[in-house]
Amino acid sequence: YGKNTIKFLRLHKEGKKHFVKEVEVCTHLRLTSAQEYLDGNNSLVIPTDTIKNIVLVLAKKHGIPTIEQFAIDICKHFMTTFCQVGYVKTYVQEVPWQRLHENGVPHIHSFICVPDGIRFCEAEQCRNGPLVVFAGIKDLKLMKTTQSGFEGFYKNEHTTLPERNDRILCGELFCKWSYGDCKDFDFDCIWNKIRECILEAFAGPPDCGEYSPSYQKTVNSIQMCILSKVSQVQVIEVVLNNTFYNVVDMTNLGLTNDKEVLVPVETPYGSCACTLGRK
Amino acid sequence: YGKNTIKFLRLHKEGKKHFVKEVEVCTHLRLTSAQEYLDGNNSLVIPTDTIKNIVLVLAKKHGIPTIEQFAIDICKHFMTTFCQVGYVKTYVQEVPWQRLHENGVPHIHSFICVPDGIRFCEAEQCRNGPLVVFAGIKDLKLMKTTQSGFEGFYKNEHTTLPERNDRILCGELFCKWSYGDCKDFDFDCIWNKIRECILEAFAGPPDCGEYSPSYQKTVNSIQMCILSKVSQVQVIEVVLNNTFYNVVDMTNLGLTNDKEVLVPVETPYGSCACTLGRK
Amino acid sequence: YGKNTIKFLRLHKEGKKHFVKEVEVCTHLRLTSAQEYLDGNNSLVIPTDTIKNIVLVLAKKHGIPTIEQFAIDICKHFMTTFCQVGYVKTYVQEVPWQRLHENGVPHIHSFICVPDGIRFCEAEQCRNGPLVVFAGIKDLKLMKTTQSGFEGFYKNEHTTLPERNDRILCGELFCKWSYGDCKDFDFDCIWNKIRECILEAFAGPPDCGEYSPSYQKTVNSIQMCILSKVSQVQVIEVVLNNTFYNVVDMTNLGLTNDKEVLVPVETPYGSCACTLGRK
Amino acid sequence: YGKNTIKFLRLHKEGKKHFVKEVEVCTHLRLTSAQEYLDGNNSLVIPTDTIKNIVLVLAKKHGIPTIEQFAIDICKHFMTTFCQVGYVKTYVQEVPWQRLHENGVPHIHSFICVPDGIRFCEAEQCRNGPLVVFAGIKDLKLMKTTQSGFEGFYKNEHTTLPERNDRILCGELFCKWSYGDCKDFDFDCIWNKIRECILEAFAGPPDCGEYSPSYQKTVNSIQMCILSKVSQVQVIEVVLNNTFYNVVDMTNLGLTNDKEVLVPVETPYGSCACTLGRK
Repeated sequence: YGKNTIKFLRLHKEGKKHFVKEVEVCTHLRLTSAQEYLDGNNSLVIPTDTIKNIVLVLAKKHGIPTIEQFAIDICKHFMTTFCQVGYVKTYVQEVPWQRLHENGVPHIHSFICVPDGIRFCEAEQCRNGPLVVFAGIKDLKLMKTTQSGFEGFYKNEHTTLPERNDRILCGELFCKWSYGDCKDFDFDCIWNKIRECILEAFAGPPDCGEYSPSYQKTVNSIQMCILSKVSQVQVIEVVLNNTFYNVVDMTNLGLTNDKEVLVPVETPYGSCACTLGRK
Repeated sequence: YGKNTIKFLRLHKEGKKHFVKEVEVCTHLRLTSAQEYLDGNNSLVIPTDTIKNIVLVLAKKHGIPTIEQFAIDICKHFMTTFCQVGYVKTYVQEVPWQRLHENGVPHIHSFICVPDGIRFCEAEQCRNGPLVVFAGIKDLKLMKTTQSGFEGFYKNEHTTLPERNDRILCGELFCKWSYGDCKDFDFDCIWNKIRECILEAFAGPPDCGEYSPSYQKTVNSIQMCILSKVSQVQVIEVVLNNTFYNVVDMTNLGLTNDKEVLVPVETPYGSCACTLGRK
Repeated sequence: YGKNTIKFLRLHKEGKKHFVKEVEVCTHLRLTSAQEYLDGNNSLVIPTDTIKNIVLVLAKKHGIPTIEQFAIDICKHFMTTFCQVGYVKTYVQEVPWQRLHENGVPHIHSFICVPDGIRFCEAEQCRNGPLVVFAGIKDLKLMKTTQSGFEGFYKNEHTTLPERNDRILCGELFCKWSYGDCKDFDFDCIWNKIRECILEAFAGPPDCGEYSPSYQKTVNSIQMCILSKVSQVQVIEVVLNNTFYNVVDMTNLGLTNDKEVLVPVETPYGSCACTLGRK
Repeated sequence: YGKNTIKFLRLHKEGKKHFVKEVEVCTHLRLTSAQEYLDGNNSLVIPTDTIKNIVLVLAKKHGIPTIEQFAIDICKHFMTTFCQVGYVKTYVQEVPWQRLHENGVPHIHSFICVPDGIRFCEAEQCRNGPLVVFAGIKDLKLMKTTQSGFEGFYKNEHTTLPERNDRILCGELFCKWSYGDCKDFDFDCIWNKIRECILEAFAGPPDCGEYSPSYQKTVNSIQMCILSKVSQVQVIEVVLNNTFYNVVDMTNLGLTNDKEVLVPVETPYGSCACTLGRK
């Protein structure tokens, strides 16, 4: 197969108000032929440069109403235009430009980049198969400074970790879900709702939080919350890349450190992941 | 000289409400001696490990009310404790953890990382000299989709750039300023005010913006705005790392592209910088 | 599942001569249970900290004769020690320390890092399944300045790429292969032989090279060369991340540029990949 | 001031043999005027695009015999062509492409990237001042597994580091030196000689090494070695970014670890630097 990546900006105006989407689009193609590998016969090969042109032309003609719709359009274009394509996958990722506000007033043409979680999506299709759409958020960094522990785990002669019932829970979240048949979805609205679910399930109620007995349980809570509140989601994968923090032992320095000063543990670092679907 | 870097987290509670600062602290020391280099005589060398301990102990004892105050405390500690230290500089950078909100309600112990500009500071002192404090913001990415041009520049036989009066202005901003005598400053308040100045000077009025004839002029506008509105600032340095965008030529593809689809130009990339002080 | 990564150094001496391996080990475990996700019951969970200890203890006890043997040992340890483990995969990557030489004389304890291709391996096992071993090389950057073209490709209204019969072929290579039953393999010897195959198939004979009609054909040539020369390899995957270079058009500057000055094309960039096995 | 960066490839042939230099060139210019900042008057501004063209044209016309000569040519061009330029600095860095060898035979047009230390240089000139040339090596990673210690350092109540006489010495080296009047220097030859000095001073004799009592002393040894052996060097700056390794305490795991298994200490990390010149 081959894949290629292109970054570009799509602007449009409504009256004097400007709108901007900056995206990175990666297109994978697999041809039904093998002659380009075996014989160096390029007659069916679609050059990277042509793929780039197609992506830019589609953006020019139809804009990028949502990245999901754009990925669907690209997928469909390749499947219907090129009979030598056996499989196509389009990944689209959005640069998080947000409109600037001055004293609460939105600016008509100025933007700031706010990377508190990156939105992405994928559309994928095999010839004669259905078009499947995924969406997701990545690089979302969250921390709870209490209401987290890790106890009652498996122990043997290689265990040195003490049990803890008040540790820091911190990590970088990756979350990707698939939609079912998705003709008339409001992708923006669903994505925002899921982001809220993630924050809510991670943090718990604002006044007291909710105890997390492990990274695994927190991952599961996020998944359960999304599946229960967002009916369009079929399957959801969550990966939590943990950052551990150790309370610094200050005994030698004549001080007691009551979880006030902590250092991140760079190694080992871990991640836990789970994929959950509807029955 | 020697320098070393340490990252850590400082937590504290007010009632049930948690507060968190995660910082990276880099301390430079220059000794008045040279024997450690010339003779391998380590008797005046302060080990990295000891510097780390001092930074952590100061954080434990006094907390981190602001990163500026913390940097000042570290500087003073090294200057007063070690007579072999001829120069000390402390750089502190803050991880942009923000309190999570659920439906507008602040969470008591959950945080999200929002890196829309990184706050940093420096405190610096030579033995027998004044303690100087700098503060700044970096990695602040901004874009204007109109009200920017570049015309009337110097031309010769190597010039191929066309003049433009409606281009994209996009870049990553670095801004660092020095304070005068800074005993009772409200560093948080000043920093926020300066950040607002930057956004305002970059973008112009929300309803129409303000035309920028060059990156250089925008840099100068930011500096002038800060100097006029924030009296505590003495000298201010601004660096703008430009991202250029080219309108894609779609003539060969049978389309006209009216500044709708643009690609970032990775090379050459440029930056423009200026340092400005009060008379 | 969960995974975690640890970096460490393993030293050993033979007489006065020192040997060093610095590795990054990533262990994936999938348990047969789900209670840790669903109920927060951690009784079968093996903490990251324990996994780290096991990896370090195995390195201490048996050393790291080759990274492949070390990965096999780790895999076997987890499968035989923990009945709750349903699947284990161990990835090991080596920091490319090479012994320093002074005027051709090898140094007994000094090393230099030479990252011209990173060696890695994987050992993988499902409960009741066979242990499978993979090895590979990544981050290997190669360039041919001639004997490469791209012609006769598929064309339609979105094609703008000209045909070329003398371009630069440049890319970063990833190559991963699986072994069959691998009891007594000399993994070091095989790995070096495969590295030579790659260079040879990429470059062709030293006096004239060999024409490459496409990235795809070069990928295939590498695979065919390895399969024909290294009998222990069963399946081989090659990914070539292309860097394109454009000849700079200097007509406007009054110069002809006969493929003398070229700039890398940052976007679009592409990659081509293929997996090939024995019949 | 303004600066901009461009990457490109320069090829040339001698008979059928190909030669390649891939470089990154960063040019800083400071104008004698301020009107572009204050008034938005661009009439003296030299656009990034023009600077790029000049660098490419110089590379086309004269090639890149050495990066030092190329940097000198660029500097001189700007100083003599543009009277509004008050200061120019050109930084050139080389991608470490090395000719491929097959069984000892050099390949006529194939290259491999071997980044065991990156070569760079700078040429700098103020109007009416001399042109000064610097050269250097960076990202050179070296390790000694013995013959290194750190003892007899300054101690107080914040000291927790134990004294050690057999530790690992590992770091990333940056080394930059200035030349005097440099008309007819063989820059390639000098650079290679200095690289050898660094390795020799770092490692000591191949059969036994040489004891290093501190990072500082090793830095000084490297400088002294270069100054004594390479007469063209005037001033030399060395920065050593240390990586510390801790012997893992395996007592709790029932094992003694005699400096066999070590983990890198990610934080604090330190660096030591020194600049030394001739009297």
